[in-house]
Amino acid sequence: MRAASVGDYRELARRRLPKVLFEYIDGGSYAEVTLGRNVADLEAIALRQRVMKDMTELDMSTEVFGQPFSMPVGLAPVGMAGMYARRGEVQAARAAAAAGVPFCLSTVGVCTVEEVTRAAPAPWFQLYMLKDRGYMKSLLERAKAAGSPVLVFTVDLPTPGARYRDVRSGFSGLSGLPQFLNQTKDGLAHPGWLWDVYLNGRPHTLGSVADAVQGSKRVTDFLSWMAKNFDRSVTWADLDWVRQIWDGPIVVKGVLDVEDARAARAAGADGLVVSNHGGRQLDGVRSSISALPRIADAVGGEMELFLDGGIRSGLDVLKALSLGARACFVGRAWAWALGAGGEAAVARMLQTLRAELAVAMILTGCTSIRQAGPELLDRD
Amino acid sequence: MRAASVGDYRELARRRLPKVLFEYIDGGSYAEVTLGRNVADLEAIALRQRVMKDMTELDMSTEVFGQPFSMPVGLAPVGMAGMYARRGEVQAARAAAAAGVPFCLSTVGVCTVEEVTRAAPAPWFQLYMLKDRGYMKSLLERAKAAGSPVLVFTVDLPTPGARYRDVRSGFSGLSGLPQFLNQTKDGLAHPGWLWDVYLNGRPHTLGSVADAVQGSKRVTDFLSWMAKNFDRSVTWADLDWVRQIWDGPIVVKGVLDVEDARAARAAGADGLVVSNHGGRQLDGVRSSISALPRIADAVGGEMELFLDGGIRSGLDVLKALSLGARACFVGRAWAWALGAGGEAAVARMLQTLRAELAVAMILTGCTSIRQAGPELLDRD
Amino acid sequence: MRAASVGDYRELARRRLPKVLFEYIDGGSYAEVTLGRNVADLEAIALRQRVMKDMTELDMSTEVFGQPFSMPVGLAPVGMAGMYARRGEVQAARAAAAAGVPFCLSTVGVCTVEEVTRAAPAPWFQLYMLKDRGYMKSLLERAKAAGSPVLVFTVDLPTPGARYRDVRSGFSGLSGLPQFLNQTKDGLAHPGWLWDVYLNGRPHTLGSVADAVQGSKRVTDFLSWMAKNFDRSVTWADLDWVRQIWDGPIVVKGVLDVEDARAARAAGADGLVVSNHGGRQLDGVRSSISALPRIADAVGGEMELFLDGGIRSGLDVLKALSLGARACFVGRAWAWALGAGGEAAVARMLQTLRAELAVAMILTGCTSIRQAGPELLDRD
Amino acid sequence: MRAASVGDYRELARRRLPKVLFEYIDGGSYAEVTLGRNVADLEAIALRQRVMKDMTELDMSTEVFGQPFSMPVGLAPVGMAGMYARRGEVQAARAAAAAGVPFCLSTVGVCTVEEVTRAAPAPWFQLYMLKDRGYMKSLLERAKAAGSPVLVFTVDLPTPGARYRDVRSGFSGLSGLPQFLNQTKDGLAHPGWLWDVYLNGRPHTLGSVADAVQGSKRVTDFLSWMAKNFDRSVTWADLDWVRQIWDGPIVVKGVLDVEDARAARAAGADGLVVSNHGGRQLDGVRSSISALPRIADAVGGEMELFLDGGIRSGLDVLKALSLGARACFVGRAWAWALGAGGEAAVARMLQTLRAELAVAMILTGCTSIRQAGPELLDRD
Ligand SMILES: Cc1cc2nc3c(=O)[nH]c(=O)nc-3n(C[C@H](O)[C@H](O)[C@H](O)COP(=O)(O)O)c2cc1C
Ligand SMILES: Cc1cc2nc3c(=O)[nH]c(=O)nc-3n(C[C@H](O)[C@H](O)[C@H](O)COP(=O)(O)O)c2cc1C
Ligand SMILES: Cc1cc2nc3c(=O)[nH]c(=O)nc-3n(C[C@H](O)[C@H](O)[C@H](O)COP(=O)(O)O)c2cc1C
Ligand SMILES: Cc1cc2nc3c(=O)[nH]c(=O)nc-3n(C[C@H](O)[C@H](O)[C@H](O)COP(=O)(O)O)c2cc1C
Repeated sequence: MRAASVGDYRELARRRLPKVLFEYIDGGSYAEVTLGRNVADLEAIALRQRVMKDMTELDMSTEVFGQPFSMPVGLAPVGMAGMYARRGEVQAARAAAAAGVPFCLSTVGVCTVEEVTRAAPAPWFQLYMLKDRGYMKSLLERAKAAGSPVLVFTVDLPTPGARYRDVRSGFSGLSGLPQFLNQTKDGLAHPGWLWDVYLNGRPHTLGSVADAVQGSKRVTDFLSWMAKNFDRSVTWADLDWVRQIWDGPIVVKGVLDVEDARAARAAGADGLVVSNHGGRQLDGVRSSISALPRIADAVGGEMELFLDGGIRSGLDVLKALSLGARACFVGRAWAWALGAGGEAAVARMLQTLRAELAVAMILTGCTSIRQAGPELLDRD
Repeated sequence: MRAASVGDYRELARRRLPKVLFEYIDGGSYAEVTLGRNVADLEAIALRQRVMKDMTELDMSTEVFGQPFSMPVGLAPVGMAGMYARRGEVQAARAAAAAGVPFCLSTVGVCTVEEVTRAAPAPWFQLYMLKDRGYMKSLLERAKAAGSPVLVFTVDLPTPGARYRDVRSGFSGLSGLPQFLNQTKDGLAHPGWLWDVYLNGRPHTLGSVADAVQGSKRVTDFLSWMAKNFDRSVTWADLDWVRQIWDGPIVVKGVLDVEDARAARAAGADGLVVSNHGGRQLDGVRSSISALPRIADAVGGEMELFLDGGIRSGLDVLKALSLGARACFVGRAWAWALGAGGEAAVARMLQTLRAELAVAMILTGCTSIRQAGPELLDRD
Repeated sequence: MRAASVGDYRELARRRLPKVLFEYIDGGSYAEVTLGRNVADLEAIALRQRVMKDMTELDMSTEVFGQPFSMPVGLAPVGMAGMYARRGEVQAARAAAAAGVPFCLSTVGVCTVEEVTRAAPAPWFQLYMLKDRGYMKSLLERAKAAGSPVLVFTVDLPTPGARYRDVRSGFSGLSGLPQFLNQTKDGLAHPGWLWDVYLNGRPHTLGSVADAVQGSKRVTDFLSWMAKNFDRSVTWADLDWVRQIWDGPIVVKGVLDVEDARAARAAGADGLVVSNHGGRQLDGVRSSISALPRIADAVGGEMELFLDGGIRSGLDVLKALSLGARACFVGRAWAWALGAGGEAAVARMLQTLRAELAVAMILTGCTSIRQAGPELLDRD
Repeated sequence: MRAASVGDYRELARRRLPKVLFEYIDGGSYAEVTLGRNVADLEAIALRQRVMKDMTELDMSTEVFGQPFSMPVGLAPVGMAGMYARRGEVQAARAAAAAGVPFCLSTVGVCTVEEVTRAAPAPWFQLYMLKDRGYMKSLLERAKAAGSPVLVFTVDLPTPGARYRDVRSGFSGLSGLPQFLNQTKDGLAHPGWLWDVYLNGRPHTLGSVADAVQGSKRVTDFLSWMAKNFDRSVTWADLDWVRQIWDGPIVVKGVLDVEDARAARAAGADGLVVSNHGGRQLDGVRSSISALPRIADAVGGEMELFLDGGIRSGLDVLKALSLGARACFVGRAWAWALGAGGEAAVARMLQTLRAELAVAMILTGCTSIRQAGPELLDRD
């Protein structure tokens, strides 16, 4: 199958990855209502077809925090990408760099920030608030030392949501994977992955967490260490503590509510990712795209606004930008592509988004993406 | 299959129970429109994601009629539970007690209130209005003697609704079950159930009704006795008669309409279960969740309000509480779990609801369930 | 399969009848949008659950044009019923009489009005406006002579709509049936029908039309005679012509529009069937139930209003009456039942509607069907 | 299968054509949201059933630019029709002429305007704006010389949209077809087509483009020449250039927006096709039918308005005319019919549309199609 769309990479990943991993990427929490809303609410928005405008020049570049983007898209932090393809974070970071878009490394990446930085420009760095502040401090300092330009501080995971698919598939985090694969035929049924990742993609530790789990030689309990370390006592005041260690831009990820957006601004955040964690945390909350306009109204002038959740095409990107986002992040889109075919597939997927965005700009008469606004949308 | 959600217990029950019993639990009346609305209307409500609130302390306990609930959930009266697992009412009552939530015994339970009380705290007691008032009086006195703290008086069954699935499956109530199982292979196809319930779970009488059907040694015609005894002449005035025998709190179950809610209050009821009998009575009526806010407006300050119908997760529980319920009752959720795996499964199902409620509280920033209100919901 | 609902008779008819006949009954015109709307719009209406009303007395009888109905339901005119069961019109008329509801004989029935009247009370008589007025006159006089109490004058068939299913199934009206059955295995595949109807249910002529097609001994071209005789020049003025021959009540069938309803009143019609011919004529028009309230507003005080289209249960009947109908007619419901099991099945189907209507009345607190009104519905 | 409806021709084409061609005709761009909206929005419109009007006279003829139409329908420009049936454009043009409706030849037709004109009245001529203006000029002059009465200037293709189905099916335009068929079994699996079109329908060049691709003897790269030649710098000013060469009526095809409609008028266009290219260009834009009323309001008095997109029946035609179109064009409807059965099938399909339109007129009481207006629609 030739992949024509982001959805096709999903199908290819479904074939290549052990079920337990595919379900982990694909699923959302509980009944997956919010996951569905993310996609459906984007689909329901109508672009406004315009014709006979001179579209010779088409500028889809933008700039955020002084960093140029060749198009208004970035790779969202996705945990354990090193399990979807050999040293997955490195591969994705390379594809992103080649495409001129930022890659954001997850706290629970398989590759460390140092490993990624040896192969590609220093990634944006995503951080969860953990109970062990000493450890957090060292993580921040490592990212700073590696040259990460932006800190993405994820706030919608004070506690992990429950994803039914993971319970059903028997997934219990990275640590349980080896037994799991031994016990089942899931691995054997996917020899491409087995060879590429399982045999040749080691070590399968969570790079940033490895040090914290002292004395552990065996691949155990990284995720359970994480689960215990999510800190639900965090408040906006704690952002001060982060600020003292991190002097670069801080983007708060996981805000859906106007009051929270204002609070983030007041607490000194430089940007926001309007997000519900791709429908993986509290199921039943609104779609991120539906939250965007009101947040843009409230703080759009004062902060950089990003959106993630449900972006499946360049058309979706244009919709989000028309409603107030500076750029979009994609999560599953690149995780599927990575699982489907590593760096090359991520690169092709990004080309697809770019081509789609170009068509969307041409047929809405938008010559410069920085000018995208509500006039590109068709409302009754 | 590991059960991750309430829906998974449904699937497990489907496998374990004779079809005739599973359909009885699962079905609704007529075209099952109201059954669908109960679930769909809950699903359509959006929770409001909030972040960066100190959620260290989380209090999901509540108190009703002086009785503590460890969480705002109770087991709704479900008839014939002793057919889904051996002495099913006892098993469910034990699981409820261990979880710190109330169990409500149905008028048409297999186990008597005395049998349940020997194994667990005295259950809430559910009563249908029957024509034989002398018999009703004796039932009420037995419940009182057993120590039942609350009377649940079900008013939405002046006549039984028609459930097409039961007609199709050949179900004609408990009395017909033995022949049924002999004639078909339904029982043999479910050996786990056959051993547990059919052979070792006797007697299969309706505990509370058995005495009324005098002279009957054989397992016959309990339900047809019931069917003939539903009393459609009952009015609010008859509540006085009940009140004379029962001096504890009376909760009227089966109210959807504001006028009826006011009438119940005027007639001296202490609480209401906003309910359409789980979509098993008059098909085509509104969902119970859609009826809740207006009833809460009208009588919420003066009565304890409960909701049942369509509750399938802890997220649903939070939605109902945000709209004015003190607590929710679950019907099919526990009946499925009981059919799937007896007491242990009911206990696990309750843990699941609790864990889901916790996530929902943490991500809506609700530290105390007693404070839940409309500010936890996202409305446009 | 035991039939629990109207939908179950549909399934039984599907099994028993040659496909060509089943599709003829079941289908609607074009994309069947209106057929779908008839059912969906009824389903979307919410009944209002009321409790604790003394429902001992339940009166579902009504009276129209001095004729008592045991319940507010009648059998709509359905063409060629004698092909669904042996002498089908007679069987249905008997079932209707036993149930105390009117049966309306179609212009294109297999049995004549005289044959029906020998076996049951004289039926209501349905008439299409035909070009051959002399023939029409004789039909009206035969109906009058037979004692038909009411004339149903169908106005929504100035030209036949196209039903794609009939084209696909190869159905070309009654006349083509014999060849059709010879050529295909459709008849052989349905031996019950073959014996009952095809071999023993003769003659297979259209009773009322037979005389008009003079000289025809063979079963040919009745429907094509009909098709050529539909008269699209008819206007309200022509009702005068009918009135001169028919002095009993005239019910105009096939009105959806308020202006047409007013015109019918002005032209002297005594009643209306709000109808779109069961979605068999102009696809894309509104559902009959959605047309009812405005027509009831406009002429409800001055004419008897009936509704047909999409009635599948006693619950639907109550909804229609709450919105202004005096009674409902059912078309497919009885055609399916007749095809499924002849008179006995029609009788059981009517019992089902009655039982459903009783439950609906009891749980909406409606003691007398003549009092049904909008207060039985739940609107936001 | 006898084709009863436009949808049936689709099914027949699916069986007869190589998959790669069927998918090309059938598909839309991206997620096919707009393709779906075109059909769904037409379906949602309700016609207004009227009865008892004298419908003896029924006039469905109209006139545009002095040219009589026997009914308000035309065949939209569809590329490569000569691949769906032998010399497909000629066959379709003949069927259109016989039916008294216009045929519009696509820029990327297999047959040239001269070939079509030898067999049928000169077709309307559709033009894309190409970079090679000299070549465009010669095309316009050939069409003029051939006698084409109307120029259809398509403006919604400044760049080709991406159709995922074509990527997946491996379709890469006409040029790649031979290899494609050799490599796969797609051709062999469709012997009817293989014989009719592939072996006997040559040459398989794009008639109008052939000359431009100089020196090419082999069937190569026509479409890639086209793709490179789409000109996205075109503005309304360029219409002047066209006007200098073409002195007949110019219809601008591909306008959805009121501002664009006004600009087209100001630029001197004589007519508009309200269109989104059948959902094949920018996915996510509104349906053409939903765009029609506002464009009719803005410029309806001053320009001839046509609609295409989603027309699947004569009922749809009446809906579009009621909302302000003078006539409708059908794209897939005739492409499917052509693929299903050549000229004869296109002729039958047009008869079906005509018969459907007649029923729709009769049952909405519309005697003359030129009088169709909003009073034929039922709105709440
Ligand atoms: C498999 C997977 C793992 C993820 N891991 C993280 C993570 O470690 N940190 C984080 O902040 N977000 C994580 N996310 C959320 C993404 O950053 C992003 O918010 C989400 O995927 C956007 O929705 P989309 O997948 O519909 O594009 C993860 C998402 C997925 C699908
Ligand atoms: C199998 C079954 C039996 C029931 N039996 C009774 C009963 O005996 N008495 C009663 O008041 N309600 C009875 N109910 C209704 C429940 O108490 C409750 O109102 C309903 O199940 C709530 O909807 P849910 O199943 O969607 O949670 C029964 C429900 C089910 C599913
Ligand atoms: C098989 C069939 C034949 C019909 N024949 C006639 C007829 O001869 N005359 C008539 O006025 N209506 C006829 N109708 C329409 C019915 O009288 C009635 O309007 C319609 O069936 C009501 O919709 P329902 O089928 O959803 O109940 C027919 C309907 C069906 C289904
Ligand atoms: C297979 C196919 C080829 C087409 N080729 C052209 C074309 O060459 N030029 C053009 O202006 N429009 C073209 N169109 C668009 C049609 O002219 C028309 O706008 C569209 O098909 C209308 O939608 P419908 O298919 O739902 O009727 C094409 C459409 C299809 C389906």
